[in-house]
Amino acid sequence: MTEQEQRPIKKVGIFKCGNIGTSPLLELLLDELADRQDIKVRTVTTGSKMGLEDVEEALPKIFEFNPDLFIVISPNTALPGPAKAREAISNSKRPGVVISDSPGKRAKADIEKQGLGYIIITGDPMIGARKEFLDAVEMALFNSNVSKVLAVSGVYRIVHQEIDKVIYALEAGQTPILPRLVVDLPFIRDNSELNNPYARAKAMAAYALAEKLAEVNVQACFMEKESEKYVYLVACAHEIAQTAAKLAEEAREIEKYNDTLVRKPHAKSGKTKTKSRLMQPPTFPEEVG
Amino acid sequence: MTEQEQRPIKKVGIFKCGNIGTSPLLELLLDELADRQDIKVRTVTTGSKMGLEDVEEALPKIFEFNPDLFIVISPNTALPGPAKAREAISNSKRPGVVISDSPGKRAKADIEKQGLGYIIITGDPMIGARKEFLDAVEMALFNSNVSKVLAVSGVYRIVHQEIDKVIYALEAGQTPILPRLVVDLPFIRDNSELNNPYARAKAMAAYALAEKLAEVNVQACFMEKESEKYVYLVACAHEIAQTAAKLAEEAREIEKYNDTLVRKPHAKSGKTKTKSRLMQPPTFPEEVG
Amino acid sequence: MTEQEQRPIKKVGIFKCGNIGTSPLLELLLDELADRQDIKVRTVTTGSKMGLEDVEEALPKIFEFNPDLFIVISPNTALPGPAKAREAISNSKRPGVVISDSPGKRAKADIEKQGLGYIIITGDPMIGARKEFLDAVEMALFNSNVSKVLAVSGVYRIVHQEIDKVIYALEAGQTPILPRLVVDLPFIRDNSELNNPYARAKAMAAYALAEKLAEVNVQACFMEKESEKYVYLVACAHEIAQTAAKLAEEAREIEKYNDTLVRKPHAKSGKTKTKSRLMQPPTFPEEVG
Amino acid sequence: MTEQEQRPIKKVGIFKCGNIGTSPLLELLLDELADRQDIKVRTVTTGSKMGLEDVEEALPKIFEFNPDLFIVISPNTALPGPAKAREAISNSKRPGVVISDSPGKRAKADIEKQGLGYIIITGDPMIGARKEFLDAVEMALFNSNVSKVLAVSGVYRIVHQEIDKVIYALEAGQTPILPRLVVDLPFIRDNSELNNPYARAKAMAAYALAEKLAEVNVQACFMEKESEKYVYLVACAHEIAQTAAKLAEEAREIEKYNDTLVRKPHAKSGKTKTKSRLMQPPTFPEEVG
Amino acid sequence: MTEQEQRPIKKVGIFKCGNIGTSPLLELLLDELADRQDIKVRTVTTGSKMGLEDVEEALPKIFEFNPDLFIVISPNTALPGPAKAREAISNSKRPGVVISDSPGKRAKADIEKQGLGYIIITGDPMIGARKEFLDAVEMALFNSNVSKVLAVSGVYRIVHQEIDKVIYALEAGQTPILPRLVVDLPFIRDNSELNNPYARAKAMAAYALAEKLAEVNVQACFMEKESEKYVYLVACAHEIAQTAAKLAEEAREIEKYNDTLVRKPHAKSGKTKTKSRLMQPPTFPEEVG
Amino acid sequence: MTEQEQRPIKKVGIFKCGNIGTSPLLELLLDELADRQDIKVRTVTTGSKMGLEDVEEALPKIFEFNPDLFIVISPNTALPGPAKAREAISNSKRPGVVISDSPGKRAKADIEKQGLGYIIITGDPMIGARKEFLDAVEMALFNSNVSKVLAVSGVYRIVHQEIDKVIYALEAGQTPILPRLVVDLPFIRDNSELNNPYARAKAMAAYALAEKLAEVNVQACFMEKESEKYVYLVACAHEIAQTAAKLAEEAREIEKYNDTLVRKPHAKSGKTKTKSRLMQPPTFPEEVG
Repeated sequence: MTEQEQRPIKKVGIFKCGNIGTSPLLELLLDELADRQDIKVRTVTTGSKMGLEDVEEALPKIFEFNPDLFIVISPNTALPGPAKAREAISNSKRPGVVISDSPGKRAKADIEKQGLGYIIITGDPMIGARKEFLDAVEMALFNSNVSKVLAVSGVYRIVHQEIDKVIYALEAGQTPILPRLVVDLPFIRDNSELNNPYARAKAMAAYALAEKLAEVNVQACFMEKESEKYVYLVACAHEIAQTAAKLAEEAREIEKYNDTLVRKPHAKSGKTKTKSRLMQPPTFPEEVG
Repeated sequence: MTEQEQRPIKKVGIFKCGNIGTSPLLELLLDELADRQDIKVRTVTTGSKMGLEDVEEALPKIFEFNPDLFIVISPNTALPGPAKAREAISNSKRPGVVISDSPGKRAKADIEKQGLGYIIITGDPMIGARKEFLDAVEMALFNSNVSKVLAVSGVYRIVHQEIDKVIYALEAGQTPILPRLVVDLPFIRDNSELNNPYARAKAMAAYALAEKLAEVNVQACFMEKESEKYVYLVACAHEIAQTAAKLAEEAREIEKYNDTLVRKPHAKSGKTKTKSRLMQPPTFPEEVG
Repeated sequence: MTEQEQRPIKKVGIFKCGNIGTSPLLELLLDELADRQDIKVRTVTTGSKMGLEDVEEALPKIFEFNPDLFIVISPNTALPGPAKAREAISNSKRPGVVISDSPGKRAKADIEKQGLGYIIITGDPMIGARKEFLDAVEMALFNSNVSKVLAVSGVYRIVHQEIDKVIYALEAGQTPILPRLVVDLPFIRDNSELNNPYARAKAMAAYALAEKLAEVNVQACFMEKESEKYVYLVACAHEIAQTAAKLAEEAREIEKYNDTLVRKPHAKSGKTKTKSRLMQPPTFPEEVG
Repeated sequence: MTEQEQRPIKKVGIFKCGNIGTSPLLELLLDELADRQDIKVRTVTTGSKMGLEDVEEALPKIFEFNPDLFIVISPNTALPGPAKAREAISNSKRPGVVISDSPGKRAKADIEKQGLGYIIITGDPMIGARKEFLDAVEMALFNSNVSKVLAVSGVYRIVHQEIDKVIYALEAGQTPILPRLVVDLPFIRDNSELNNPYARAKAMAAYALAEKLAEVNVQACFMEKESEKYVYLVACAHEIAQTAAKLAEEAREIEKYNDTLVRKPHAKSGKTKTKSRLMQPPTFPEEVG
Repeated sequence: MTEQEQRPIKKVGIFKCGNIGTSPLLELLLDELADRQDIKVRTVTTGSKMGLEDVEEALPKIFEFNPDLFIVISPNTALPGPAKAREAISNSKRPGVVISDSPGKRAKADIEKQGLGYIIITGDPMIGARKEFLDAVEMALFNSNVSKVLAVSGVYRIVHQEIDKVIYALEAGQTPILPRLVVDLPFIRDNSELNNPYARAKAMAAYALAEKLAEVNVQACFMEKESEKYVYLVACAHEIAQTAAKLAEEAREIEKYNDTLVRKPHAKSGKTKTKSRLMQPPTFPEEVG
Repeated sequence: MTEQEQRPIKKVGIFKCGNIGTSPLLELLLDELADRQDIKVRTVTTGSKMGLEDVEEALPKIFEFNPDLFIVISPNTALPGPAKAREAISNSKRPGVVISDSPGKRAKADIEKQGLGYIIITGDPMIGARKEFLDAVEMALFNSNVSKVLAVSGVYRIVHQEIDKVIYALEAGQTPILPRLVVDLPFIRDNSELNNPYARAKAMAAYALAEKLAEVNVQACFMEKESEKYVYLVACAHEIAQTAAKLAEEAREIEKYNDTLVRKPHAKSGKTKTKSRLMQPPTFPEEVG
């Protein structure tokens, strides 16, 4: 890996097939100010489809970018399409991290065997994919709501910090320790950046709602056969999503009301600075001590 | 174009550099149920960065997918990176559509000269990209809020319908008429699917807010030099985004309260069905008449 | 049972031990206007405690009222205290109905063997009974919130209608058919009186939230041992309760906005009238046809 | 009273006839965690009815429990039914406390002559008992809303603390000093546990609303004769109840936002502990000093 | 009055001393579009003060405008300042209308003796005029909230319609019948333009709240002497005002949700047109028939 | 001006023609408690009309009050009516201050030449003056909403403080320095009294919304000719006003939640005291030091 160590800029290759709530903004989470000088990000996606054929056609492109680190994100990583992507990344011998939703838990052993890392997000819920209900606008609103929950409850922070850690290790010429995390309600509780305990409880509640709505959508999409029954269920699930987003927003508002909202922007170096009072500048953690 | 006519499935190649509110979900808007059988979508992105170098490295991959239709989406399409992408697509002689935000208006004449279509979205606002304020979580929340505004005010519908029209023309073996639209407040008003007039007025208000916050962020990011001044401005702009999202949500709720919410899911054929009462099935428009 | 048939007024004897969300208002649901002339209600309770000893001391009093119909309501009816009450009622040979929460499902076979009816309410959630969190005020607020969810989602209607049916049968000198219901999310969906489909979806969502918070509270009260962990969980659960109540309220507001809210007051005869427009009088269902 | 002094556990006998907002949860307020070892609570109720006959039939049962302390709670304690209960308790020579609503003020002199204590709650409002409006569900929602107001404005705390004081005196073998309180707006102001002054003002406002709606309901139920007139009034009154509940909730949220919410759980000994920061344990007041 | 009859344009002279919620916008209510060709409005005010001296100095100016109709608006019209104005108007023999708040009821007999009309608005509440609480900003917010309540509950409509009627009579050369109205809760109920019955109930509730807060402010400003006591009361009263405004707004939103909001703009002729669906033009009532 | 210096009480003469959001409460802002002993305020208005004729008829009356200080407030002070008033005041050689909205900016040079002061308020927006939309009630609600924005964002404070400064100078026998202010978004930011930075950002957002809606209303009232187009625009603008009011209210609530709300009541002397904790008394600034 000598060659890589000498390369000053690490390249992150993201492969997305199908969509979960963490997918659309994933590459932006790594470089939200677009001025990070230690990484380049390249993404290839197959859109909402995640069939084996789609993956097989699109996957080679991400390898052609020759990334230092692979990320593959998809619903249920145990399905053939995402599984194919994992296999190819594993074979590349480059470090790779799998990000998936609750059904992806089934593939944990597999992923470990493949030498990859994983972040399984139990509160990244399945959408209400029923043609009587879901159109482009409803889909977008669901993603908007879920995204708010994932942002406030800390999932997006966890995701970028875990990827950042791998990048920092690569930059230091070390073999990265890949994440192996199931991000469930207790994990959310223990890793929240919200200072007010009720804000934390509200963010947890939002996350718990996301878990619940996933259950309702699974019921609606895979088990109920009559539209009179499943349409109510998907509508119910998307109402929960909307409510969860409001609750998440309220949690964050509490921190704003107290001017204790933690922000961790990426510096140009790629490291994150931290701040909590709005009118104070962000600093590197070591600067504080 | 004989060969293309014979290809049963059209391929849409999307190139994203940098990010606007319409970017993250763009490919999903075209195939929200992941079962459309007339198209394949492939996307290549350079993440939040949109420098010329990034574009030059990543752009070839999207051509390698050999798409029937190109879409390039970015902030201010007049900047060198996006301009490069437009040029390459123009040179390919394949149909191409440019999607950009308000500053992109400057490139309209250029785009027309290049033979490309465009959708300029005046209410897709610049983010508050100041390091004292923006971190990954704040960025995600801004996108969540903007996305809600764009979804409810009709922008996402306009976008996928315009792309769909091009696809349908290609499928019919016709030379597509490419869109040339500036999606501003009057356009939103005249193309709204909201039935209740107050719902429409609220959605318009949400869109107008997005336009206003864009102005504030431009002031904050490019003109104010002191952090004591610009931090308040970006914070103000993101508050407007949050408020706009609530207003958009309320507009949609009105339609739900009246059970008149229009949904237009894509059928497997790629055509859209329509419905407005939740418990009735979607139908093709012609079926109604 | 000749004597009973001749008695013009039926007496309902309610025994409450411990508390679930349906308990506090149970007798009021049967005679909300206090002018029903076909029944008398007598209740004996042991307060929040439901130990065997408490039940054994208090239970005889309800028999001394010589009721025509028994109702026993408690958390987890499989526990010794409530089980004792069921046994005694079963032995009395008078009709009896058991009302309990989700853990009560375990006792279904038992209850059937005892010849009793049951209404198991999966969305009547356990409270966050941790001393660091729960005091009298928090307890009251939780009950207020849960009560709102149960009222709007239709549980209270189901409960009084099922009891009413038994009473009507007794009044008619018939052997009543006792209810055997598990009131879960699909049941709520299929028995909602809300006309607007989104109102129904929101009420279902509120109910689903009540189910979820029950899970969180079980985790918090029985599994987590450290207060740093369980306090967040009970706080989270009560936030869900608060949110669920708001969602339920919103569901009902939709019906008010449309002036379609169904009301079913008890007439003096004990039968229920029905109405939906506020400024129209309630009528007996047969009057409408 | 020697025998009673030696009994380690005091028994509280509660008699409820008719219903006010403080009734449904009364016994739960005394032992919210169901683990208090110094008292037993037994309740007998006549449901929503409070006629003389009902009281005469049910009242003896509460005496048969042989309580150390009686509580009788009802609307307007001056009416024949509740008056009967007071008389009987007075005759028993055991300590007794009357809890009633605003019209109960008329009976103050009487109650004092009877040697009983009283807590008159001016903000515990009459329900909108008109058949065109009130059904079981509307009744439950009204109780839910009123309960929230009474909980947050401090009424429930006042009630259980006053009863607790009597119990503690009995436990200490002392003759208890019975409460003689009219809980009106100034009393609420002077006894609030809310720390933020605006939270206190909001809770007071909620209480004032409850007082006002009581007036409107009295007008609607006893004075207006035409349904076109009184239906609007009861609907108006219940809207005030709903609004009052939201205001109360907001008052409490302020304390949560500041993490200053006071909690006073009952310890097993029956004494109350106190805490205000969520993540700190409750302590006995003396422990703090 | 021959000369007046011939004058094509009637002049309305408004004298304001002190301020009630109906004062600030009074002249604007008569000519909201500033294009009414049948009237001119002239106003003279003494600001927030209403002492006898202020009135005596300012009052002559309004007479110098030589109006065809006088309106005098003030708090408690029985006080010396406003009484002086009434007396002078009465002496002028021109028609005059007194607008005042609840304490003004005392002057009803007087006003009738003076040959003047009156509109007493029981829900136009006294402000919380305590120096520890009220500053210019708080005063403005109170007026904003009260104004919203008065607008939605129908008071402003009643006021301008009553004045309009007098003007129309003068224009027709008739002796106008002057209004003698106490605008209380039943009057509000019976004159509401809100179509949805729950909207009407909510607007009534808002009005009832305004009545209640008036009581609290009277208590706070005239009876409580200690600032620890009255500051909470005025703060409580202003919270009620804020809540009442929200409730009023919600009432109006319901009409918007149903597109049934009644609008009655003044035509240039001074007559009012009517409309209820937003996208339909307003018409004169006779045009409809 | 010797005579004036000796007059203990200064008289402020306000002339209003037409209406902006700052007009209706202007005189009340100067003496909100009606007990200020250093000034008298007299106002003359022409109602909603502001034509030259109206001004010419009414204007002399304000001079007859012989004020020490003139204020003229109107929409667009460059129009003939308001211009006339400015001219007359300028000619009087007494100090005068012009208050106007954004279009008034055009007259800045003129006003300076006239020796007058000005306060131009860019966020005091034009109303949606279209007969299909605006009636008395809609007008009142718009004013209510705008007033809330102006109060919370600091405009009303700025206005009365600027006028106060002139008055204090006159009282001290000095030649006052007249204000020359354009109150735009940066001015609002730099002069906010809100302590919490997010509260300030929200208040700024509310102000920015008021600016935006002004643009929309100008478009609707002066440029669009078809009612199908402009009705949506005025409805949109008034929705923005409503939303802006909510946002302003929320900003103020944050200060209440933190008990840091600044209040600056006028003392009897005319000077302002200051306080921020609700239960502490206001003091003169010097007292604090």
